[in-house]
Order: sequence, then C-alpha cells, then structure tokens
Amino acid sequence: MRHLISIEDLDPEQVTLILDTAEQLREIAERPIKKVPTLRGRTVCNLFLEDSTRTRISFDIAAKRLSADVITFSAKGSSVSKGESFKDTALTLDAMGVDAVVVRSESSGAPLQLSRYLDVPILNAGDGWHQHPTQALLDLFTIRRHFGRLEGLTVTIVGDVLHSRVARSEVQALTMMGANVRVCAPPTLLPPFVETWGVEVVRDLDDALPDSDVVYLLRVQRERMHRAFFPTTREYARLYGMTSERLAALPEHAVILHPGPMNRGVEITPDVADSPRALITEQVSSGIAVRMACLYLLLGSADAPVEEHVA
Amino acid sequence: MRHLISIEDLDPEQVTLILDTAEQLREIAERPIKKVPTLRGRTVCNLFLEDSTRTRISFDIAAKRLSADVITFSAKGSSVSKGESFKDTALTLDAMGVDAVVVRSESSGAPLQLSRYLDVPILNAGDGWHQHPTQALLDLFTIRRHFGRLEGLTVTIVGDVLHSRVARSEVQALTMMGANVRVCAPPTLLPPFVETWGVEVVRDLDDALPDSDVVYLLRVQRERMHRAFFPTTREYARLYGMTSERLAALPEHAVILHPGPMNRGVEITPDVADSPRALITEQVSSGIAVRMACLYLLLGSADAPVEEHVA
Amino acid sequence: MRHLISIEDLDPEQVTLILDTAEQLREIAERPIKKVPTLRGRTVCNLFLEDSTRTRISFDIAAKRLSADVITFSAKGSSVSKGESFKDTALTLDAMGVDAVVVRSESSGAPLQLSRYLDVPILNAGDGWHQHPTQALLDLFTIRRHFGRLEGLTVTIVGDVLHSRVARSEVQALTMMGANVRVCAPPTLLPPFVETWGVEVVRDLDDALPDSDVVYLLRVQRERMHRAFFPTTREYARLYGMTSERLAALPEHAVILHPGPMNRGVEITPDVADSPRALITEQVSSGIAVRMACLYLLLGSADAPVEEHVA
Repeated sequence: MRHLISIEDLDPEQVTLILDTAEQLREIAERPIKKVPTLRGRTVCNLFLEDSTRTRISFDIAAKRLSADVITFSAKGSSVSKGESFKDTALTLDAMGVDAVVVRSESSGAPLQLSRYLDVPILNAGDGWHQHPTQALLDLFTIRRHFGRLEGLTVTIVGDVLHSRVARSEVQALTMMGANVRVCAPPTLLPPFVETWGVEVVRDLDDALPDSDVVYLLRVQRERMHRAFFPTTREYARLYGMTSERLAALPEHAVILHPGPMNRGVEITPDVADSPRALITEQVSSGIAVRMACLYLLLGSADAPVEEHVA
Repeated sequence: MRHLISIEDLDPEQVTLILDTAEQLREIAERPIKKVPTLRGRTVCNLFLEDSTRTRISFDIAAKRLSADVITFSAKGSSVSKGESFKDTALTLDAMGVDAVVVRSESSGAPLQLSRYLDVPILNAGDGWHQHPTQALLDLFTIRRHFGRLEGLTVTIVGDVLHSRVARSEVQALTMMGANVRVCAPPTLLPPFVETWGVEVVRDLDDALPDSDVVYLLRVQRERMHRAFFPTTREYARLYGMTSERLAALPEHAVILHPGPMNRGVEITPDVADSPRALITEQVSSGIAVRMACLYLLLGSADAPVEEHVA
Repeated sequence: MRHLISIEDLDPEQVTLILDTAEQLREIAERPIKKVPTLRGRTVCNLFLEDSTRTRISFDIAAKRLSADVITFSAKGSSVSKGESFKDTALTLDAMGVDAVVVRSESSGAPLQLSRYLDVPILNAGDGWHQHPTQALLDLFTIRRHFGRLEGLTVTIVGDVLHSRVARSEVQALTMMGANVRVCAPPTLLPPFVETWGVEVVRDLDDALPDSDVVYLLRVQRERMHRAFFPTTREYARLYGMTSERLAALPEHAVILHPGPMNRGVEITPDVADSPRALITEQVSSGIAVRMACLYLLLGSADAPVEEHVA
C-alpha cells in the first residue's frame, strides 16, 4: 500500500489492517495529552483544491496527533489559479520535500495523477464524483465498532448516488467486506447500470427499512436542486427523508449514518439526527482515528509495531 | 469558570485571578524561547465565522506559547456556508476532540449556543454587538499595570457605544472593578437607556477631559458612515476625535486606549496615536498574556499552580 | 545583516555566508526527521499582503524545519482591508512579540517601511517590481551547486525584465558575484537605461545561446498580455520561448532556470521544462535551504556555529 487513492486498490486484509490500526490509535483521543511522536519531523501537505472544512480539519488534527507538521495549500490565491499546470504544482511539492500529500479536488483522477509525479504517499480526500476512500473507511470503522462485524450486515444507501463519491467508495468498501448493499434514490439520481455495482436497487424506501441494519443517508446537495433532478426538497423529504416514523420501522438494533454536513429537515429530520440511533458524531470521531491510521501506515509504520507507537 | 462568554459571568475575584495569572504568564514573552509546555497535546480550535486578523492571531500566538496545537476554522469555504446548522458544526468539533473553542461570530449569542452543544471550554472572541470579554480583560490588564489599580479611576469611553461589543464588555468590567465610567458619543450612537448601565453620559468631550484618568476611544466603523449616524468623518473628528489639543487638556498622568485597528485622522490623530501617552501597542501585548491566562485557567490549571508552569 | 530587504544591502561575503549556510542546512532535508530545534519557541510571521503560495509555503516549511512557530497574516479578511495603516499593522506585530516578519507585498518598499517600525528582522518575500532577494539567492545557490562557482559564468535572462522583481534582484546578485549577465526581451519589456544595470542587452535570443552557461527564463505574466506589451503569446513563444531547438543550440553544459510558476507552451516548451537540463525543481528545493539559512542567520546564529545546530 503506497497510496490511498481508491477503495478499489485495497483488498479485505488491507481494509482490516487499517481498521485495526485505527482501533489502536483511537485510544489516543481519550488521553489528556492527545499526541504521540510517531511522525515528528514529517511534513504533511493538505492540498485542497476544492473547499472542504470538515475533511481538511480532520486530516489536520490526525496529522498533528502524530506530531507531523502540516502545511495547507488551498486553491484560492495559489499558483494553480495563476495557470500553473497541476503537474508543476506536484513537482513543486515534491521538490519541497513534503512527506505525504492529502489531496481534495473537484477533478476525478487528480490524486492518481499526483501519484505519478510524486514519490511520496498520496491520500485521496475526495476527487470529483470518483472516490472518497477515507470516508468509506471511517464509516466501516464506525459500523464495525457498533456491530462487531461488517459481514452479513444489510446497508441501505439513500439519496444522490449518481453524483456521490461517498456512495461509490462506500459501496465498494462494504461489498468487499461482505455486507449486502442496497441503494434507494430518485431514478434521476441513480447511475445507469448501478446494478453492476453489486447492489440491489430499492424503489420505495419504506420497503427497505424492516431488514436494514444500517441506513446510510447521503447529503442532498443544494446545488443540484436547481437542475430538476427532483421536484422540491419537500417532495424529497417526503419520499427519501429519514423521519422518526421511518426510524420506528427499522429493526431496533439498526443505526443511521450520514457523512455530513447534514441538511436537517431534508434528508433527515432533526429528531432523528439527534437520536442515539444516529452515529453521526461517532463517524466524525472515527474519522480522526482512521486518518491517523492511514497516515501512520503510509508514512511511519516501518520501524515499530503500532502498539509501541501508541505506548 | 467553565467558559468565557460574557463579562457578566465573572465576579471581581475571577477577574483578578485572570489578571494576576496574565501577569505571571506575561513574562514568558520576554524570554528567548517564548514557550512553555503547559498545553502540549491539547487542540484549540479558532472558529472564526467573522473576519478578524488581530484577535485570531493573538489567540493563535497565545495558544502556541502554551504549546497547544491550533486549528483554524473560518467561515469562508466551510460547511457552515454549505448550510450546515451551527449546532452540527458544534457537534462536529466536539466529536473531533478539540479541547477548547475560541469563537468569533457576527451573531450575538453564538458562543453561548456553542457552550450548550460542546463539553469543552468556549472562549468568546467577539459576538455581534454583544460581548468581547478578552478585549475588556486585556484593557483592564493594561490599565492596572499602568496605574497599579482599577478602583476609583475615571474612564471616559468615546464613540459608537451603540454598536460596540467592546464598549459593552468594557463598561461591565470597569464598573465591576470599581472604576467610574463615562460615555461620550453622538446621540445616535448611544444605546437607549444607557444610563442604566451605571455610566454617566457626557455631551461634550471637552468637559470630560480634565478629570479623566483614561480615555478609551472606540473605532469608527466605516460601514456605519453610510447610515447617517453622523454627518461626516471630519465632523466626527472635530467633535469626538482625540487630538494633541485634547491630549493637553487631560491630566498629565492620563492615558489613551484604543482597541484597534485605528482610523488615524478620524477618532485619533496620528501624533496622539504615536505619543507615549497612548498605550495602544501595550494593549496588543497585554492581549497575548490575557488570552494565555484565559486558556490556561480554562484548560490547564488543575494539575499545578501557574508558577510551576511558568518556571 | 539585520534584515533581508534587497540584494543591494548585501556584499559578496554575506552572499557567500548565506549560500554556505544553506549548503549545511540543505542536508536536513534528506533526513527522515527533517527538523532541528534551532528556532524552537520563536514565532515567524508570514505577512502576505499579496497572494503567493509557493513562496509562502517555502518559508513556512523552512521555519518549521527550524522548529519555529509560524503565524500567517494574509491580506484577505485582515485589518489591513479595514483601513488600518500599514504602520499600525507593523506596530501590532511588534507588540505581539513576533521574532521575524516575512513580508510579501505588491507595494515596492513595504519591507523597508516595515523595518523602520519593527525591531525584529524583516525578510522580503517580494515587493512590487522592486526586489525578491531570496529568489535570487536560491538561484545563485542552485547555479553554484551545479557549476561549483558563480564567477565568470554567462547568464542570459529572458523575458519581462521591466516588471520583474526577480530580474532586478537576479541581475544585482549575479553581477555582484562576478557573473556576466545579459538580458533579452521585447523592447517594450525592457526598463529604460537597462544598460546602466551592468548588463548587456541582446536583441535576438538565438545569438545569445551559443555562449550562455545559464538561461534564466522569466515568467510571462498573463495579466500583462492585455496591455499590448507584445502581440500574442504565440509570437512571444516564437521569439523568446525556450524550445528543444534552442536547447540544442546551447553549450552542452548549459542549464535552464525558471522561478516558477511556469507557463508551459509560452516561455518554455513542456519537453524543455521536463528535461534534465532544466533545474527548476532543484530551485524549489534550494529555496527551502536558502530560506532556512536566512532565518537562521537573522534569528538564531548568535549562540553556536551552524554545524552544531545541524548536528
């Protein structure tokens, strides 16, 4: 594992290794001094060519908990906006001696391109409609912590699967680990031939509830609403929103996930969002642990087992 | 003291504790290595939903001098601008395990709201027209260092009291500590019933000068000038500006304070701004010490007295 | 040497000291832990009043490799945009106790002005059309590493010399160190009386190639293209662009430099940019070492020789 660009590059053993490592690093968050010296003197570059606060801060905190230095390179005011080619940005970061690049871009494929120009690990923090692998991994981590396993669980993904890099990574990661995945969305927001992804398509959300272990709600992207993908947000909420009535129709052990940021009142009602059945804040905490694990495994694992780094 | 949201939450003993702690931490600024390990491994989140450079940098330096890690979350390009509720931003920061949040917002009450969602100390770095408690505390610190006391001093606050969170915090802090406070402003820029604040209203600045120990000039906010609060900046300067003539009318021991950034030539003439009687740069230095004290007291005081942390 | 504002302030001994120090610090970049504690507890302020990513990040990494804390003060959202005078910004930074200020500004002379208000070292990271001294120093460093010397080399600078602070610093630094400098540009992009700079003006780039040791390509600033300085970018490329044909006309030992970011296809063709004869990524690496040397010499040299800091 040299980079983390796509869930497709991973096998189940690697996914398990990441989740197990995250489990050990997670404990650091509960100490008064939430820092280990593992990556001291290493520089992680956060190359954010698309706006993102949550993911950027999550990687920032993860890197700092491992004692790495973090430099942030955002699109605004960067040489990228002066017309520099992406290749030259990559060569520049390489020449500056950064030890890893975390990249978010609205261009699908940017992280892969970057990995061709740089000799250091590239971590994809979301590229276009393509992939968001650390999101999928943190979701798996959250689900595995809750259920003790991934295999055999039924996960229903609800919403804009077509434009969602989260859904793409999520489906691949869950099916690889043996979960059954179903998708439920307005037909305009489903990719053509989505059945070839190894998922079941569900027309009516209410049909899918009684035997779902996890309902994974995708964010309604307000910028899509102008494009006639669905009539109104009210209509969307009526058909696909998670309400307390729908929560009651789930098995008692079932849980709700959402990658955030949520549109309360659209894909999720406030009472569901705040219910103990929603693991949304746990996903955020998991994100730090999983990103620490990815940085650790890509950058610092060679010298000693993780137990020693954490001790 | 769990949070620092409003001067009203403090009693005189707590104010004195903050100022005394700042006095001890201030000395760190004079060392070649301006850093103590007190907050190593703690993460302070600077949540700046309204632009601010001075206050943000002041908190940033304060946190770093205590060896905390700082993450900055600004409104631009944040999930807040994607429509996430403030509550969800708060829950996210909580789940990420930040140890304190410094918040600046144009909404009065945002820090209080935040304190309801997060379990960690909230420090108000200015909220709407409401409060700017660390500004008031650093001013008290500056005045106390200069005069050796606060009690019995006469402080004349000049300018836009109506829209000023600084004025609001300032009046509360000064009156609590036994100073006599007077306000002087165009009638359009005085809050209704300002007398109920325990201050004297002065019509003519020149009447107030001979027995003022401190003249506190508020910033003229250029964005207000369009709104007919006062005729022209020249007229404002003539009636309320601190000039060398007015400086000469003050008692010899009296000093000038201004929270910055100044409009030279409007509320203060350049010669007064640069005179040794203006303590404006001392206020800036005091700001670091006072913010270190607040972070220290809210985050790190339990284990050892400040003398040991400073040693 | 109290500041680094202009190449003109330096003498050849000082330039050599900077380059020699950079040579020793450069080695840190090759270690797994790229960090020495030299400037621990010092705060470097990156005051970027003009957009810049490469230079800002380069100084950021340089400071962090020396264990300094870095605070970034950019124009957007700063009190400078609220109308604060530059003088007051300077006095504020001084009062905050920063230990050095790295300043980039579109105003020629801003760093010099700053040095009058602050007691700490000022490092010019580019001011208007005036100077960009660390760029010139890193270029000298790159050339000296390649050729083992600077004296007697022939350097041809190609492009918009008129508007280029890089060219200005470059010419001064190279001529001071005994190189022969030639400039080649459209007549509209040459400063009047450029001959008084101690350089030879070359009309036709092709005449200059056979005896150049270094060709230094300046960036074509797209914002100038609208102003009729030259007809079209295609015409510019034909007359002044470095192509593989022109590369072949150079002596075999000659090399290409460019300060970045490049406009591939305008001042340089992609094949030349990617050729081993182009030292462009080496310039970027040199930048970190040279900026570490400047920070070290201005901030931290008093107590021990650089060998001990590096050890």
